[in-house]
Amino acid sequence: MTSVVLLDHGSGGRASRRLIREVFMRHLSNPVLDTMDDAAHLELSGSLAMSTDSFTVDPPEFPGGDIGSLAVHGTVNDVAMLGARPRYLSCAFILEEGLPLDLLERIVRSMGQAARAAGVWVVTGDTKVVPRGAADKVFITTTGIGEILADPAPAGSRAAAGDAVLLSGTVGDHGLTILSRRAGLALDGPLASDSAPLHVMAASLATEVGDIHVLRDPTRGGLATTLNEIAEQSGVACEIREEAIPVRSCVASGCAVLGLDPLYLANEGKLLCILPEAKAAGALAVMRRSPYGAEAAVIGRILAPGDKAGAGRVILITRPGGRRLLGMLEGEQLPRIC
Amino acid sequence: MTSVVLLDHGSGGRASRRLIREVFMRHLSNPVLDTMDDAAHLELSGSLAMSTDSFTVDPPEFPGGDIGSLAVHGTVNDVAMLGARPRYLSCAFILEEGLPLDLLERIVRSMGQAARAAGVWVVTGDTKVVPRGAADKVFITTTGIGEILADPAPAGSRAAAGDAVLLSGTVGDHGLTILSRRAGLALDGPLASDSAPLHVMAASLATEVGDIHVLRDPTRGGLATTLNEIAEQSGVACEIREEAIPVRSCVASGCAVLGLDPLYLANEGKLLCILPEAKAAGALAVMRRSPYGAEAAVIGRILAPGDKAGAGRVILITRPGGRRLLGMLEGEQLPRIC
Repeated sequence: MTSVVLLDHGSGGRASRRLIREVFMRHLSNPVLDTMDDAAHLELSGSLAMSTDSFTVDPPEFPGGDIGSLAVHGTVNDVAMLGARPRYLSCAFILEEGLPLDLLERIVRSMGQAARAAGVWVVTGDTKVVPRGAADKVFITTTGIGEILADPAPAGSRAAAGDAVLLSGTVGDHGLTILSRRAGLALDGPLASDSAPLHVMAASLATEVGDIHVLRDPTRGGLATTLNEIAEQSGVACEIREEAIPVRSCVASGCAVLGLDPLYLANEGKLLCILPEAKAAGALAVMRRSPYGAEAAVIGRILAPGDKAGAGRVILITRPGGRRLLGMLEGEQLPRIC
Repeated sequence: MTSVVLLDHGSGGRASRRLIREVFMRHLSNPVLDTMDDAAHLELSGSLAMSTDSFTVDPPEFPGGDIGSLAVHGTVNDVAMLGARPRYLSCAFILEEGLPLDLLERIVRSMGQAARAAGVWVVTGDTKVVPRGAADKVFITTTGIGEILADPAPAGSRAAAGDAVLLSGTVGDHGLTILSRRAGLALDGPLASDSAPLHVMAASLATEVGDIHVLRDPTRGGLATTLNEIAEQSGVACEIREEAIPVRSCVASGCAVLGLDPLYLANEGKLLCILPEAKAAGALAVMRRSPYGAEAAVIGRILAPGDKAGAGRVILITRPGGRRLLGMLEGEQLPRIC
């Protein structure tokens, strides 16, 4: 077999089948995928969650993960944020002619490991190869479906006055890792992406704690943008305390050097949980039990509109005790972060 | 609003939301998509079909369609080939910085029209923007799910000796259209892509005729490659008659000029139906009733292995009456055909 991806590998002909057999099936095999039909045949019922994301992260391999594991975690987490148990993934690859096959194999192997760890099967897929220069290395689109466990399901529109806002851990790790890698910066400390599957934590919140109003993972745009979206969807105001938001010291110092705000950097293994204040302690205990939630914290609360801010607003209480409006991310300094 | 796609549009922040509202929601709106949550909340149950495809076709607009309608038809058809009723689609866009917004809007509008015509909702999506030169214009990945109507479902492994092989119409239209467009060739005749939704035809075959062993749309690699896949999956041999395969005269003459074989060119609105010979006439009547099946024909049959060819082989009986082995597509002359 050649050592790089060729246009032939995307033809749908013999070379495509060889690539599928020798790379994709080798690492992703399961009884559904192995049928090799145009569509996967699944058994599922009831209320389902479906989510999709394209991943274009540059570089494709980075401390803490790679585009393959990220493509599994990102979609598993989006499905889990509806209070659902992720079950099946599809994955579609767009490969640039000339991509080293050993890089592709590492990515697919990582994808297989992440899928097994998350208890999901990759059941159907697609591979396209575009000529050199028509894409950059590798793009992956995953789509996930799963069964909704919570009734009613959490939704961005359900935050209510009096709710507590919980965050499962530190912010900014993924965004700063990618940025520093790309810029060739050597920042202090063990900087790594937080890419991780959150479905177990989300399911425990939905089934053991219950009454979860909102679950959402603050990815692109960071914590600040995600809270703004929720405030807008729910027509409420939100107040968070800067001192309560966990930030790793290497992320804080890296952000200070680069003039970045960790509240606007992408996370790939964190969730926000918004639920009635009376349930906050129970939810916090569940989150901290997870290997990905040791630093979970209550970071703020939902206000009634007109309380101290208008509907759709997010207020940050700064360390010195000041109050400032936390807007949505306006520009884009970091393309291809996920 | 600016006239081109900017990196900001992929940030997950304010510009992303504006693009989503003003372009995507405008043409794709439905009650599920409109919730704007990370995942779509659906009600579906039983046996489901799931399929995904990335579309990278160049040029993105061509006679007979564009990348938007193609991305709907391609996935609707793959779901339908499992004897399923397509219900929901996800769509993920990878956009190149600088893409004209009016081109994007035409593509999304076309996608909305194709989805409404096919009776499916686009329920969730994603948009990434990559810097100029990191992708070529626009790539779309759609994933579809639907309810399987046929029991047992058609599958590539179910072709059996004695079955008839039916084709729903002419071959080569899509592949030759894209190729000639890209090469700037002015071929004779009204050449256009056959991009079309086949779910109604597929559902009628599954429910009115029944006992459908295989349904498959011969896309990349063309009719010859698809028949080889089926022969291999089912462990049978297949024999088709060249004179029975419909080819439009402009496609035949274009292929002759360019030295191409229409049996290896991609189709985007055709299906192969393999079922017991006794049911062939009924299936043919159903196919011809469809606006996309007027030229449906019985093109061959499934042989027992060892009959005249080995398992996994496809034999073409040529017009002069000779027999030759029809292999899988070996190379790739036409990248980015779909």
